Amino acid sequence: MAESSAQAAGSPLAPEWLAVPSDLNELVPALWAHDVARGPGGDLTVAGLPVGEVKSRFGSPVFVLSEADFRARARAFKDSFDAAFDDVCGGVDVYYAGKSFLCTAVAAWAHQEGLRVDTASGGELAVALRAGVPGELIGLHGNNKSDAEIERALGNGVGRIIVDSLDELERVARIAAARGTDTPGSGPDGSEAPRAKVMLRLTPGVHAHTHEFIATAHEDQKFGLSMAAGTASEGFTGAGVDGGADGAASMAEEAVAAAAGHDSIELLGVHCHIGSQIFEPEGFELAAVKLLAFVASMRSAYGVELPELDLGGGYGIAYLPGDAPRPPAEIAEALAGVVRETCAKLGITAPRISIEPGRAIVGSTTFTLYEVGTIKDVVVDVPAGAAGTDAAGGMGGTAVRRYVSVDGGMSDNARPVLYDADYSVVLANRTSDAPAQLTRVVGKHCESGDIVVRDAYLPADVRAGDLLAVPGTGAYCWALSSNYNYLARPGVLAVRGGEARWIVRPETEDDLLSRDMGA
Amino acid sequence: MAESSAQAAGSPLAPEWLAVPSDLNELVPALWAHDVARGPGGDLTVAGLPVGEVKSRFGSPVFVLSEADFRARARAFKDSFDAAFDDVCGGVDVYYAGKSFLCTAVAAWAHQEGLRVDTASGGELAVALRAGVPGELIGLHGNNKSDAEIERALGNGVGRIIVDSLDELERVARIAAARGTDTPGSGPDGSEAPRAKVMLRLTPGVHAHTHEFIATAHEDQKFGLSMAAGTASEGFTGAGVDGGADGAASMAEEAVAAAAGHDSIELLGVHCHIGSQIFEPEGFELAAVKLLAFVASMRSAYGVELPELDLGGGYGIAYLPGDAPRPPAEIAEALAGVVRETCAKLGITAPRISIEPGRAIVGSTTFTLYEVGTIKDVVVDVPAGAAGTDAAGGMGGTAVRRYVSVDGGMSDNARPVLYDADYSVVLANRTSDAPAQLTRVVGKHCESGDIVVRDAYLPADVRAGDLLAVPGTGAYCWALSSNYNYLARPGVLAVRGGEARWIVRPETEDDLLSRDMGA
Repeated sequence: MAESSAQAAGSPLAPEWLAVPSDLNELVPALWAHDVARGPGGDLTVAGLPVGEVKSRFGSPVFVLSEADFRARARAFKDSFDAAFDDVCGGVDVYYAGKSFLCTAVAAWAHQEGLRVDTASGGELAVALRAGVPGELIGLHGNNKSDAEIERALGNGVGRIIVDSLDELERVARIAAARGTDTPGSGPDGSEAPRAKVMLRLTPGVHAHTHEFIATAHEDQKFGLSMAAGTASEGFTGAGVDGGADGAASMAEEAVAAAAGHDSIELLGVHCHIGSQIFEPEGFELAAVKLLAFVASMRSAYGVELPELDLGGGYGIAYLPGDAPRPPAEIAEALAGVVRETCAKLGITAPRISIEPGRAIVGSTTFTLYEVGTIKDVVVDVPAGAAGTDAAGGMGGTAVRRYVSVDGGMSDNARPVLYDADYSVVLANRTSDAPAQLTRVVGKHCESGDIVVRDAYLPADVRAGDLLAVPGTGAYCWALSSNYNYLARPGVLAVRGGEARWIVRPETEDDLLSRDMGA
Repeated sequence: MAESSAQAAGSPLAPEWLAVPSDLNELVPALWAHDVARGPGGDLTVAGLPVGEVKSRFGSPVFVLSEADFRARARAFKDSFDAAFDDVCGGVDVYYAGKSFLCTAVAAWAHQEGLRVDTASGGELAVALRAGVPGELIGLHGNNKSDAEIERALGNGVGRIIVDSLDELERVARIAAARGTDTPGSGPDGSEAPRAKVMLRLTPGVHAHTHEFIATAHEDQKFGLSMAAGTASEGFTGAGVDGGADGAASMAEEAVAAAAGHDSIELLGVHCHIGSQIFEPEGFELAAVKLLAFVASMRSAYGVELPELDLGGGYGIAYLPGDAPRPPAEIAEALAGVVRETCAKLGITAPRISIEPGRAIVGSTTFTLYEVGTIKDVVVDVPAGAAGTDAAGGMGGTAVRRYVSVDGGMSDNARPVLYDADYSVVLANRTSDAPAQLTRVVGKHCESGDIVVRDAYLPADVRAGDLLAVPGTGAYCWALSSNYNYLARPGVLAVRGGEARWIVRPETEDDLLSRDMGA
């Protein structure tokens, strides 16, 4: 394979967006925690701790999280949204979206930095409570909450249940009413009955993703209550405030009317979530305008005040060198302007705004450290006409793709196989002046789709025993991890001021076998 | 939503392949364990045990596995391949592919039924050994085995290590040689040194999937040693036995020559794996012909005998009512004919054949039992011209998609979101005469892609508290399960003769929090 070490220039197998870096040892700041850097010896360090020490003391693979970076990003959201919305609604409630990554340590940090915590299940709620986050600062999401989860939320005085359907609204009302009756001296008949604090999740017909958004009347998804005319139940006619040509009411309007009719429910407001990995503010702005109009119409038609409005999460982060998401302050200012202006037009007081960033806080705080094992140069066919082939412009040819295997894979990062997600990677234990080699970093699972980084340039001298670091793995990696092929899940190591501690310890083989009930 | 309960005929939202069943209560035999049936009360039973009792005693969601069905399918593979290959090579070694689903109970059953066990990691190896499967009946796969995994395999006298790369071959040779030296009285210099038994995994350039296969010179994947000419390392010229126009050697040939040169390695033969969910035998046949020619050429060029040939797994199962995979006997006979004929042509003794079915044994033994929660009728747009719309042939229109949420989801079955895999579903706790309603069964995760069954007809009267059964979840569901959103993973309940027992117990909230190191 004469080609294998000679691809200093771009490989014909590289995707168009992938440029050969001028310096393979450089760290692109947007991809990393602010306190990750190359140390004097060339190895990666996080808050001063070298990755070689991480490997020798804690093993690999391992999620390495910068605590200072997590706190800084959490605080940046809180401060910039508070500042931008100060004159609009006196600030913003920022809920850290626990579904991206949750353990008691990060829940506590979020709380200490002035954030609240958004949970997606009874299990996430349990973690937030165990972390010492007060119930009233926790939200509970979910399209199919069980009675037990609703009970648990109410029993812990959760600040808001985000109700996702008409079914669930009745369920929450019933459970809250029964709880009231159970408490001596309070109940549906008494004024002290604790009411369930509820937000209604609406679908405004806005789907946003990275640089674009789509506006549609109807959303084909499991979440939320439709704002489109004609989506209410057959028996509900409503006030027709948001009706279409035929004046038919929406499911969202029906839910507001139903909530207002329940003594056991305190309707706080409405909520939407328009997508994920969003770089541009336009989608958020459009959703905000739609929801504010809805707030105004519910007031005029039913006299219902909706004092809170949650604009959800979905703020994007950088996964690849070219990615440039806007800083929180920029999005905050754009959004505040739209809310201010729209409320003035509608003649309503601005509701209290809340948001739910998850990935945008934790995603870039963490990299995964892997050890290199098997390296294989595979001869593959190149499409005809690809630049740089043996037969460029002709009948195609062959080129070498280097497969570098690491000691983890789709069990610790399912996003590449789940969503075709792309990541970047650097050689972490040393620098190298070797030429750039197009490389595919793969895992050790018995599955050909087990890819960690589909396409990246790494130094051509990467060898077994080297360490690779993949940045941007703080969100939806540990959270989605599995034990496929009986691989133990990595732990999460928090580093701060050069000191490291497990916030989630790694799994052991005993853990893996603990539920096996024997032959 | 006037449309919601009136879609007895096909929905305009249904995919083309989905027919309205004539009887919604019927169980299509190919999808289920042989001992699953409707009981006298209309509820689903497995080996006589009603699902209502499963739910009340064991909860939901739960994987319900028929032990008798597992044993029957394992035995069917062993018996039919033994019979077909009896005169070819005296029978076949059938390795149960543990990556599809492994726990000590199923490993023991496979062993009791005359099968061996194929493992994909040190963790799977640990399970097989704990189940009492003798080391010599276990194979170890993996593209990136660690030194520790290789040590463990050799220390337990594993019957074969399937070597995936030139790197790994050297690693195994080195570790085996060192082990020999460590044992007093044996070693590279003594005849009693235990040698590492090795198969080489080759890529024959055949990709098969369900009804088709693709033949290609070069495979762009992490697994195996290429059989294509010109893929050997630069320094290796070889005997040119399988050379192309330029007589250049393959990586596969290089590996055989290298293995033959190591005293610490006993080269058993070669292996290939051509895909998954394969219904037709042609791909297997083509691969067998290619590998047999390789066996013959290695013998003539190097005098190397390769007494074993593994044709891998990938035998398909039925996931949808129309699926009709061939019975093992049919594939066995087709393959035996090809091996018999090819060996005669090549003038070689047929090698001992082995195969590695996993999904084809365990897949259909199991269904997942879920409880229905939230039901939501969502108005969605229908593409212009779709049949049955308000505006058929015109400008499109709207129709209702029913979303039925269950108490599990992508954490217990990642295949729909990972591979767009389709499943079927039936109402399990009762029969119903209600009309057919196009339904999407979704999970309870905070993700819009969290789909369990994308499209199926269910009775229109399905309601909260009903039980749904999704068949075909024995393979790659528990194995790929996660704790996304802090959902506890379901247990696996084995049923036999009306008795049920956990073979893997369900996770508890304490399990989920056991690795959390505190705030």
